[in-house]
Amino acid sequence: MIKAGIIGATGYAGAELVRILLGHPEAEVTALGSQSFEGQPVSEVYPAYYKLCDLVCESSQAVVDKSDVVFAALPHGLSEPLAADCIGRGKAFIDLGADFRLENEEDYRRWYGKEYAHPALHEQAVYGLPELFREQIKGKKLIANPGCYPTSAALGLYPALKRGLVESDGIIIDSKSGTTGAGRGLSQTTHFPDCNEAFSPYKIAAHRHTPEIEQTLMKAAGKRLRVTFTPHLLPVNRGIVSTMYARLKLGVNEEKVREAYETFYYESPFVRILPAGKTANLKNVRYTNLCDISLHVDPRTGNLIVVSTIDNMVKGAAGQAVQNMNIIFGLDEQTGLAMVPPAF
Amino acid sequence: MIKAGIIGATGYAGAELVRILLGHPEAEVTALGSQSFEGQPVSEVYPAYYKLCDLVCESSQAVVDKSDVVFAALPHGLSEPLAADCIGRGKAFIDLGADFRLENEEDYRRWYGKEYAHPALHEQAVYGLPELFREQIKGKKLIANPGCYPTSAALGLYPALKRGLVESDGIIIDSKSGTTGAGRGLSQTTHFPDCNEAFSPYKIAAHRHTPEIEQTLMKAAGKRLRVTFTPHLLPVNRGIVSTMYARLKLGVNEEKVREAYETFYYESPFVRILPAGKTANLKNVRYTNLCDISLHVDPRTGNLIVVSTIDNMVKGAAGQAVQNMNIIFGLDEQTGLAMVPPAF
Amino acid sequence: MIKAGIIGATGYAGAELVRILLGHPEAEVTALGSQSFEGQPVSEVYPAYYKLCDLVCESSQAVVDKSDVVFAALPHGLSEPLAADCIGRGKAFIDLGADFRLENEEDYRRWYGKEYAHPALHEQAVYGLPELFREQIKGKKLIANPGCYPTSAALGLYPALKRGLVESDGIIIDSKSGTTGAGRGLSQTTHFPDCNEAFSPYKIAAHRHTPEIEQTLMKAAGKRLRVTFTPHLLPVNRGIVSTMYARLKLGVNEEKVREAYETFYYESPFVRILPAGKTANLKNVRYTNLCDISLHVDPRTGNLIVVSTIDNMVKGAAGQAVQNMNIIFGLDEQTGLAMVPPAF
Amino acid sequence: MIKAGIIGATGYAGAELVRILLGHPEAEVTALGSQSFEGQPVSEVYPAYYKLCDLVCESSQAVVDKSDVVFAALPHGLSEPLAADCIGRGKAFIDLGADFRLENEEDYRRWYGKEYAHPALHEQAVYGLPELFREQIKGKKLIANPGCYPTSAALGLYPALKRGLVESDGIIIDSKSGTTGAGRGLSQTTHFPDCNEAFSPYKIAAHRHTPEIEQTLMKAAGKRLRVTFTPHLLPVNRGIVSTMYARLKLGVNEEKVREAYETFYYESPFVRILPAGKTANLKNVRYTNLCDISLHVDPRTGNLIVVSTIDNMVKGAAGQAVQNMNIIFGLDEQTGLAMVPPAF
Repeated sequence: MIKAGIIGATGYAGAELVRILLGHPEAEVTALGSQSFEGQPVSEVYPAYYKLCDLVCESSQAVVDKSDVVFAALPHGLSEPLAADCIGRGKAFIDLGADFRLENEEDYRRWYGKEYAHPALHEQAVYGLPELFREQIKGKKLIANPGCYPTSAALGLYPALKRGLVESDGIIIDSKSGTTGAGRGLSQTTHFPDCNEAFSPYKIAAHRHTPEIEQTLMKAAGKRLRVTFTPHLLPVNRGIVSTMYARLKLGVNEEKVREAYETFYYESPFVRILPAGKTANLKNVRYTNLCDISLHVDPRTGNLIVVSTIDNMVKGAAGQAVQNMNIIFGLDEQTGLAMVPPAF
Repeated sequence: MIKAGIIGATGYAGAELVRILLGHPEAEVTALGSQSFEGQPVSEVYPAYYKLCDLVCESSQAVVDKSDVVFAALPHGLSEPLAADCIGRGKAFIDLGADFRLENEEDYRRWYGKEYAHPALHEQAVYGLPELFREQIKGKKLIANPGCYPTSAALGLYPALKRGLVESDGIIIDSKSGTTGAGRGLSQTTHFPDCNEAFSPYKIAAHRHTPEIEQTLMKAAGKRLRVTFTPHLLPVNRGIVSTMYARLKLGVNEEKVREAYETFYYESPFVRILPAGKTANLKNVRYTNLCDISLHVDPRTGNLIVVSTIDNMVKGAAGQAVQNMNIIFGLDEQTGLAMVPPAF
Repeated sequence: MIKAGIIGATGYAGAELVRILLGHPEAEVTALGSQSFEGQPVSEVYPAYYKLCDLVCESSQAVVDKSDVVFAALPHGLSEPLAADCIGRGKAFIDLGADFRLENEEDYRRWYGKEYAHPALHEQAVYGLPELFREQIKGKKLIANPGCYPTSAALGLYPALKRGLVESDGIIIDSKSGTTGAGRGLSQTTHFPDCNEAFSPYKIAAHRHTPEIEQTLMKAAGKRLRVTFTPHLLPVNRGIVSTMYARLKLGVNEEKVREAYETFYYESPFVRILPAGKTANLKNVRYTNLCDISLHVDPRTGNLIVVSTIDNMVKGAAGQAVQNMNIIFGLDEQTGLAMVPPAF
Repeated sequence: MIKAGIIGATGYAGAELVRILLGHPEAEVTALGSQSFEGQPVSEVYPAYYKLCDLVCESSQAVVDKSDVVFAALPHGLSEPLAADCIGRGKAFIDLGADFRLENEEDYRRWYGKEYAHPALHEQAVYGLPELFREQIKGKKLIANPGCYPTSAALGLYPALKRGLVESDGIIIDSKSGTTGAGRGLSQTTHFPDCNEAFSPYKIAAHRHTPEIEQTLMKAAGKRLRVTFTPHLLPVNRGIVSTMYARLKLGVNEEKVREAYETFYYESPFVRILPAGKTANLKNVRYTNLCDISLHVDPRTGNLIVVSTIDNMVKGAAGQAVQNMNIIFGLDEQTGLAMVPPAF
């Protein structure tokens, strides 16, 4: 059994890791770390786990000591020193925060206002989006688990750019996320009476996931590109829908696009390319590691419209982290992740 | 007092007209028409109205007889004969359906699959979006009340196109509507367990409001244009948010855009251009005839992002219809429409 | 015009007072008080009010100076000194907090953990539930505006007890309230992801509204009684439904009960006794000062089941406060309160 | 592997059975029956299952032929002939409908308006609430799977009555259920704009689950009793909360009650008796077979208040059916049912 520890276990991503790992046949949760709730059982914070996981929260150090793999779900800037410690001691480190996602330090500085604390460590990190970079992940110890929006956007647009089916400039990504994306911390925005029966975009042209999306899409396109990315807060608990617009190159029709996507994801069991005439809905992926993608062509304007949906807490965070763990420990990618989405 | 009759009174737009007109100081609801509920009081269908409006539903003919102005909230194709009758008898007719919205019969045929039944009548109709076409509405008897999505889109983009601030090609309109937009009729899509905790686009590149939006925007741009329009179903009762993308022309910055919008809507009390740094949220316009617009520039991509929000049942249907009534009867535009949006 | 000031204007009850008073034809909002937002416009806190009410928040003292009537929506314990000041200066004071609701200081001490600061002042206060105590309210200057749960419970049970139709012991009040009842202050309980798709009772057998309910019901019954009161948090914004159980006295049937209620509320326009076969639903009273009551008899167990529903922010707070203002200023009770509930 | 067939597979209970059985290590779904969707894959009806279960719906007969155990999730009256056929052919039959729940034909006639079609068959049926009747279930072939409300009510009240801690008369059961309880069929009540931001009781003193609840509680009390049962429709997808009131016998305090419940459910892993000070919330049992029970005493009125919560689709339907299957096939009760509830 893989000994798995979670630091930041009482945040939403951490708590979701607990839930998923409790059902994993090859891993066991050995320790939970929480600064705010040290000394308290996690089930005091999340009564859903009462009698199913009553582990008491400990210090980060205690978690590292007890684990083969450490998952860190922390605000940016806090993972680097932990990663250095883990890697130094031969343990795997999967970072659900932003510290290792951007490969260009200049981008990190610009969007996060920080420098790398351990520049050398970044050489060892790999961006853990398995459907796109599976081979690079194998054998690594330090994983930058992608952001939720970037996962939905990159899975949705990568094949079209990689296969040269769309123009790389002028891409619009209009994303809508459930409220768990904002985390467990209280805010007016997620106060029920303010959030319920409400809807609006936020951080327009200013969200930190923008350079992360661009970084991946540039790998697909093989050249510089910029996207317009607009996140919205959706009054549901879970799920991201990204509706994305790109100009089709001349002569590309919907069948060609669909075929390219199906080929591209042929060996990726978590990605479902929907048949023609169907539209992706976050309902159908909730509580699972699935990503549903539907493809639409507007013949009047020549645009490709890609709708990509994930559960932001699973494929957008904890599930993808476990998928990465599976890969680096040589397990089948779907181990512990074969949940069937509830139909309602 | 203006005698107002409503045909299709038990559909959602009709019921909302009842609510608004009951509070109108210069009009009284004299008759309600409903095919499905003829002979029953409207308060049997909508118990919210019990003891406040217990009018019994009648035939269309009875409603026309008793009214100075007839509001029709019917499926497309049913308004034309009613309009002919009303206009022939010197009564005003405000159509909340689609019969008179498209000025080009070819568009109507293509998107609605029908011919005009009374082509001559269409010459007398005016598209009733007062903030854009106020002068043309005055003195008219036959009003094509705009669709909900077209209202939010046109109010949000018209000034930018009119003032030549953005390119007219490549416009993307990503709209999200509350469920009342789908009407009172039952469907799996709006069945609570299917709709709640769900989200997806629908009728991608195929929604009938597309040509209506284009018709208005072409008037602004002074040339042919096509938009990519994607509606989504939002799990809330009311409200539309349209997030819209257009490429800014060289040298146009956010201040210039904001100034243009403020000038354009200076005499339109229902449109609120939000100050820099604020983002439109459907929460703030619910149950009112307001349209909130926020303006955002993405300097990295050169896009203008306009967020426009209305209550789909008020400014997107019944409220705008009453605003049109006010104009054609020479009343102040805000009469009976000065509701303050609830803060929660 | 009555000059109305609101202290605690940026809490939910205060904000709702703003909304209602803006539409009141005989009153004007002259000043708003807020400790947390002093110096900021109320529309900064509630963007729904932008351009409709941009009054800047002031100190309590400034509000009192500018007002004929002061509404205070404050945590308990803060209203007494303000009331003393207002009454001393001949101004009316309507307290939406709990300071003056309990007529027995012992109860106040036990449930609120405080003593009266100005015991003499309590002699001048009247409990402002107009449907039950209209005559006592007339001519008063100091009004204890009832709590939300007590309003729904007392309106629902008073006639049955007053007319001796039910036993006074063993009454069960199972109430469910929307989240605005918990106020604007942030808490884990009203954090969207925790509150949405959740439901549970809280403060079982321990809620402070219990003695307030009993105080009113004892007046009806003419003897001591105790109720079992269980509040629940409902994942909606507004509305309270109280489902209440009392044992019918021998020989009392549903018709007799219905007749008693209809007679009792004959001159109370805000109370709607629903016809046999209908059930009260909070949907039908939202955004209004209405109270819908449905009456049900279980012949198998001999219980009367009363369902009473109000909008907790209107009839349960701000609307009732304005109703009290109307009464003490000699206006028609419905002035500014004749809103039609939206059907959806 | 147990061959499991589901008749009525495209209703909500049937679809939930599909989800649960797909994750069951000792059973495989061999056939799905649906009258409405015969010939179509279940994933056409529930796109959540696309590529995970694309079985094509068949006739009932085909399902019976292919199965060792048949689950039937049908409107009442349709299960009896199917059960007769299955039992005759030596197959197990688990009925999620009401046909075999009431042991007294007179009750069935009174509440369901029907006679038994196969009276002899009823002798072989057992009421499948394992925590109460585990021993009787073992070795049976014909299981009456309990209703959702009765499961929550019976689990919550049985120990108190069995141990003689409360009076058996005057019990009040105030239950609130999520909308999946109303099924997949469309209705105005569950139309999103009508159901969202709404709340009310329904079928007061007239719900068919009443005699089923009484039947079980009478077994606990050892004498006749009647309960007042009031169901409410809650605007959430899943979950039932029953708040129940019973008069404590003299000298019984909360500790004594808690001890009795903990002892009673000591060997029932799906029932969690919450510690003192905690309150059951449907949030914590969603998507699982758990039942959370919290116990509260109101010392002022001498009432015991029991809050019992389940997921109506799992412990209230499909999960309990699988639990019954496990028992009759000699498997561990938790096989395939050890889901961890999501914390959000």
